[in-house]
Amino acid sequence: MGEFDLIARYFTRPVRRAALGVGDDCALLAPAPGMQLAVSSDMLVEGRHFFADVDPEALGHKALAVNLSDLAACGARPLAFTLALSLPRVDETWLAGFSRGLLALADAHGCELVGGDTTQGPLNLCITVFGEVPTGQALLRSGARPGDDLYVSGTLGDARLALEALLGHAPLPAEVLARARQRLERPTPRVALGQALRGIASSAMDLSDGLLGDLSHILKASGVGAHIDTYITSNLIAEKAYLSGENGHFHLEFIRQCTLAGGDDYELAFTAPPARRGAVAAASQASGTPVTRIGTVLAEPGLQLVDAGGQAVEHRYASFDHFR
Amino acid sequence: MGEFDLIARYFTRPVRRAALGVGDDCALLAPAPGMQLAVSSDMLVEGRHFFADVDPEALGHKALAVNLSDLAACGARPLAFTLALSLPRVDETWLAGFSRGLLALADAHGCELVGGDTTQGPLNLCITVFGEVPTGQALLRSGARPGDDLYVSGTLGDARLALEALLGHAPLPAEVLARARQRLERPTPRVALGQALRGIASSAMDLSDGLLGDLSHILKASGVGAHIDTYITSNLIAEKAYLSGENGHFHLEFIRQCTLAGGDDYELAFTAPPARRGAVAAASQASGTPVTRIGTVLAEPGLQLVDAGGQAVEHRYASFDHFR
Repeated sequence: MGEFDLIARYFTRPVRRAALGVGDDCALLAPAPGMQLAVSSDMLVEGRHFFADVDPEALGHKALAVNLSDLAACGARPLAFTLALSLPRVDETWLAGFSRGLLALADAHGCELVGGDTTQGPLNLCITVFGEVPTGQALLRSGARPGDDLYVSGTLGDARLALEALLGHAPLPAEVLARARQRLERPTPRVALGQALRGIASSAMDLSDGLLGDLSHILKASGVGAHIDTYITSNLIAEKAYLSGENGHFHLEFIRQCTLAGGDDYELAFTAPPARRGAVAAASQASGTPVTRIGTVLAEPGLQLVDAGGQAVEHRYASFDHFR
Repeated sequence: MGEFDLIARYFTRPVRRAALGVGDDCALLAPAPGMQLAVSSDMLVEGRHFFADVDPEALGHKALAVNLSDLAACGARPLAFTLALSLPRVDETWLAGFSRGLLALADAHGCELVGGDTTQGPLNLCITVFGEVPTGQALLRSGARPGDDLYVSGTLGDARLALEALLGHAPLPAEVLARARQRLERPTPRVALGQALRGIASSAMDLSDGLLGDLSHILKASGVGAHIDTYITSNLIAEKAYLSGENGHFHLEFIRQCTLAGGDDYELAFTAPPARRGAVAAASQASGTPVTRIGTVLAEPGLQLVDAGGQAVEHRYASFDHFR
């Protein structure tokens, strides 16, 4: 199969909202009046972001999900995306699975594939996603103010738990691993929550490299600090019941590592004034997405971790850095 | 150097036209009223699109140039781009050269870097470029009509000539190779010509995989055929004087191969009605870009090549296919 047949078979669909889709030199997008276009690019590399033997359908899902998560963090509505794909060889079974996972998530969000590129080379997926957001209403990292509440959506740390198990560092029963692995391989981008938080959240970002490291970007951009209640965040790992059962080797420190610095969560972290707690709860309910208040924004820079007894928690949790 | 230092040092500049640039979850673009956004993605892989030892400054130039060439083919004005970069290691000398070449071309076209991604992995560059074009005025592949003139801009075949020399297939004197290599490594995207052809050209595309193969996309999209005068196209190789001198081993067949199926030309191929020849000449002059009429669009499908004596030229020139 040649390059153009491959594109036609697996990646070309009728254009819906875009003015022009796959097959010309450019795609054409026409944002509605009063809308800004939100744009984000993510690149996924074999061995770095996924295992060589990952289910291609899950990989298709995740490649788009991590990009939709960036749109969610801005409060943008997904519109379209481009896919650039470097493949070692044409493997139709792999391509069929990959495009199925990719396009199922795209369809679920009304986000259409409008163009891209295919080439031969080491496996590499680069997606650029486009969304629209009313002018001036995008959620930014820079708006957190002292006294704001600090929230995260959903659960934290299960993706890292799965990764540790898959690397052989943390033995898990099959059914626990299967659940955690879903969080690692099929993250849920919080697109509806992000849009519901427009006009409510003072800042937001998505969690890809671990809560503490990612949060430091909000704090730096906003010129503030924060304290976090680690007895709350430690409860946000979905497998808490299993981990805190009779499994002595999964001690508190491991749970803290997973929840505070695990990475690959693709949840939203955001801030909002205490006066907006009702609005945050309504946004959570309207979007069907649980949110948890985990701390407070402080005027003085730095991140303070506090345990259930009010004691400071020592931390040296490094966030994920692709070059360290 | 970590990922964020790398981005700050080599790829972050003050935002100019974009509403929000590098450093948040998304960049924000605000197309002007009445404008559509033209979008194109290209991925370049080491060993496939460039040699491992290529000058990083030239690579930075080329990575953006091939994307700007897609905007040119649509008649769009460059606005912004994202860069996703997979690097085996942080090599500051390489990064400094790469970003210098990339940003020099970006500045020359007023096209700003608004975001992207960096990761560790086999060298891979993925750029997504954004341009604006008045609604309904984009140049498409599908508008060629029987009787239209067929044109190409600039020169053809020198990039392939350089490639053959670098692969050891075609010995060239150093100064001839140096000139041809400029065409291979530092192509000139025909951005001004593309915009000047809006409202004049009936169809257009850029030439990346070789004239005949690329032209077949216009013909297919437009439901037409074409004839091409190969004695004209064979004269479009810049090194014609050298090649047709005392160098018997560079015979006509080699020149035809380079000009008709060479690849990496990044010129525009376009069609326009004969009544618009004056307008095409004016667009060429206004944009400072030579154009040459090389043939005619025909109603019957297929591509006919004709030599100086009016004889049909047999051809089996394959265009570049990344998976063949």
